Amino acid sequence: MEAHLASSAGAASPSAGASSSAASPPLTYAATGVRQDLVALALGKLLAAARTNVPPGSGQPVKLPGHFAGLIRLGRETVAITTDNVGTKLLLARTLDRWEEVGEDVVAVNVNDLAAVGARPSALVDYIAVQTPVPSVFEAIGKGMARGLRESRCHLVGGETSVVPDLVKSLDLSGTALGFFPHGRSPVTGSQLRPGDVLIGLPSSGFHANGYTLIRRLLEENAVDVTRALPGDRLPLGQRLLAPTRIYTRPVESLMDARLAVALAHISGRGLRNLIRLNGKVRFLLDQLPPPEGMFRWVATLSGLPSEELYQTFNMGIGFIVAVRPKQVDRALGLLRKSGEKGARVIGRIEKGRGVYLPGEGVRYETY
Amino acid sequence: MEAHLASSAGAASPSAGASSSAASPPLTYAATGVRQDLVALALGKLLAAARTNVPPGSGQPVKLPGHFAGLIRLGRETVAITTDNVGTKLLLARTLDRWEEVGEDVVAVNVNDLAAVGARPSALVDYIAVQTPVPSVFEAIGKGMARGLRESRCHLVGGETSVVPDLVKSLDLSGTALGFFPHGRSPVTGSQLRPGDVLIGLPSSGFHANGYTLIRRLLEENAVDVTRALPGDRLPLGQRLLAPTRIYTRPVESLMDARLAVALAHISGRGLRNLIRLNGKVRFLLDQLPPPEGMFRWVATLSGLPSEELYQTFNMGIGFIVAVRPKQVDRALGLLRKSGEKGARVIGRIEKGRGVYLPGEGVRYETY
Repeated sequence: MEAHLASSAGAASPSAGASSSAASPPLTYAATGVRQDLVALALGKLLAAARTNVPPGSGQPVKLPGHFAGLIRLGRETVAITTDNVGTKLLLARTLDRWEEVGEDVVAVNVNDLAAVGARPSALVDYIAVQTPVPSVFEAIGKGMARGLRESRCHLVGGETSVVPDLVKSLDLSGTALGFFPHGRSPVTGSQLRPGDVLIGLPSSGFHANGYTLIRRLLEENAVDVTRALPGDRLPLGQRLLAPTRIYTRPVESLMDARLAVALAHISGRGLRNLIRLNGKVRFLLDQLPPPEGMFRWVATLSGLPSEELYQTFNMGIGFIVAVRPKQVDRALGLLRKSGEKGARVIGRIEKGRGVYLPGEGVRYETY
Repeated sequence: MEAHLASSAGAASPSAGASSSAASPPLTYAATGVRQDLVALALGKLLAAARTNVPPGSGQPVKLPGHFAGLIRLGRETVAITTDNVGTKLLLARTLDRWEEVGEDVVAVNVNDLAAVGARPSALVDYIAVQTPVPSVFEAIGKGMARGLRESRCHLVGGETSVVPDLVKSLDLSGTALGFFPHGRSPVTGSQLRPGDVLIGLPSSGFHANGYTLIRRLLEENAVDVTRALPGDRLPLGQRLLAPTRIYTRPVESLMDARLAVALAHISGRGLRNLIRLNGKVRFLLDQLPPPEGMFRWVATLSGLPSEELYQTFNMGIGFIVAVRPKQVDRALGLLRKSGEKGARVIGRIEKGRGVYLPGEGVRYETY
């Protein structure tokens, strides 16, 4: 239940009459009309009302407050389950009529959340709610899903396609993934973190599937031509923006098999604030973050947003963070690079205290 | 993958210019604009494109062609997974501003699909895509979910709430449920069916969560006042129409524990055609179906639809069907009644042949 996390991918003011106003003051998520407090309130009401006592015999939920996946003990196995959607990146896919990337995303956003508790992905089901099923669109989504499934070694075991033109505006895509803990592996929660542990960052492939409502507003308000490349880039911006979410299951598996992971964090919605979900009794010091490059510099410049807002809205170049004991850093970096993560690098460490601290940006987050 | 079944809950012609034309000829699902063939084509493309080889080590999918749930062997356990949505019944909930029933529905539609393979429900995650989160609506959905979770003995272990006003028109609600097979119980597929086996029907509570696009069109075209009761009824029609999907996990568990279930079918979208999914090499003779009563008679009269269309669109009073060996009928009926299914009754039997045959209605279905 605690894993039920609100994600506000949405925006554009919920009130029908809202206009897309001028770009100053800077366009934050709050300003786009997504009322994070309202989401939290509504979700709190749902969770309080949904609380019920289930008699024994139906499996035993494993408490994992505020975590990326739900866990349940079923007979002799512990199973992890995640559910997540692609969100408003789908509207960019529609604009560009490119659907493979979001097909890969629906796998990625879910298996990365499994990786964040140390579970090995096993099965995925997808959910498509659509106004009109277009075979070529479905085929492209399927192709992207295949890539994601192959990379994460996950089986597609079911799904639901629902033609509901009265419910959705074009196409909504979400999924649910199932993972497990092979060979007595235990879930990784971050509760074992202690000062001195080292934080290693894995590069992202772009904005992944978060922050697109803001990005779409920026594109619109600045009349950006997404068919052109940014200076120094060869690919059109639209393609860069659609780049599928990087899948971190392979590097995480290599660390899990070597029992090196002390904490794991998927940097998705809420950006670096996600670290706080791992452990509220230590401080995450990120003093070696790489400077934002490419699209991240572009979004910073175009939006004029302060760092505090940028790092809690976008992944800013780091899509996944792993914590290891200080003596294991070299071994961990070696395994990560061997598993394909050439860009893995130390970005900080655990200190006494609480929250997340980015000294280079002068940013502190105290709560998730 | 084979469990990926298309459901066309949608309707209202997908082309924007379609008008809601007069009620003759009779309003079938095809006529409302849901192109079942197009859905099947699109989904086929997705599944073909999504096919990929997953190396061993990530669990072993259990083949269950055309079935209600996906199955995967994870370590020492077999896990069943289903994903389904409430569909356009949500629009009726919005019209009447009553949300508890659909909250119960999202649990019911999923756990009933688990029951249909003989799995015991264990965990659920929900997915809400919403234009604006309204706390009172979320609270009501949560209350309904609690009822469904309690009845099916299922734990809520996670979920996703996404505020995406650019993607959805008001609120879309779906879920994914996980079940398992305790004490070496095996999945029930219907492959062991043979002539002579007896079909027992369990009453539905109404239309459950299927056929609402058609129902909404009928209400609109006939200017039906849903705040009034049908003749002889005391509850307003709107409340009858919103009645939550009946949950069949308790009676099915009692049969599974006694090892009596030879086949199990959740009568959801596609109505009695669902039986064909169980076994294509026998005939399902339904010669003792109860005559449609109450809302089912009402929808038959108002729509003027032929029986063939009615029984493949609505459950027509029977929401779940179990098959048992002829010698076990009395024992099965006893267990079902003890588990609360007072209305359980024999509705037919298995014969040589194929398809579904309703002699009283002169209806034959040969394919799903």
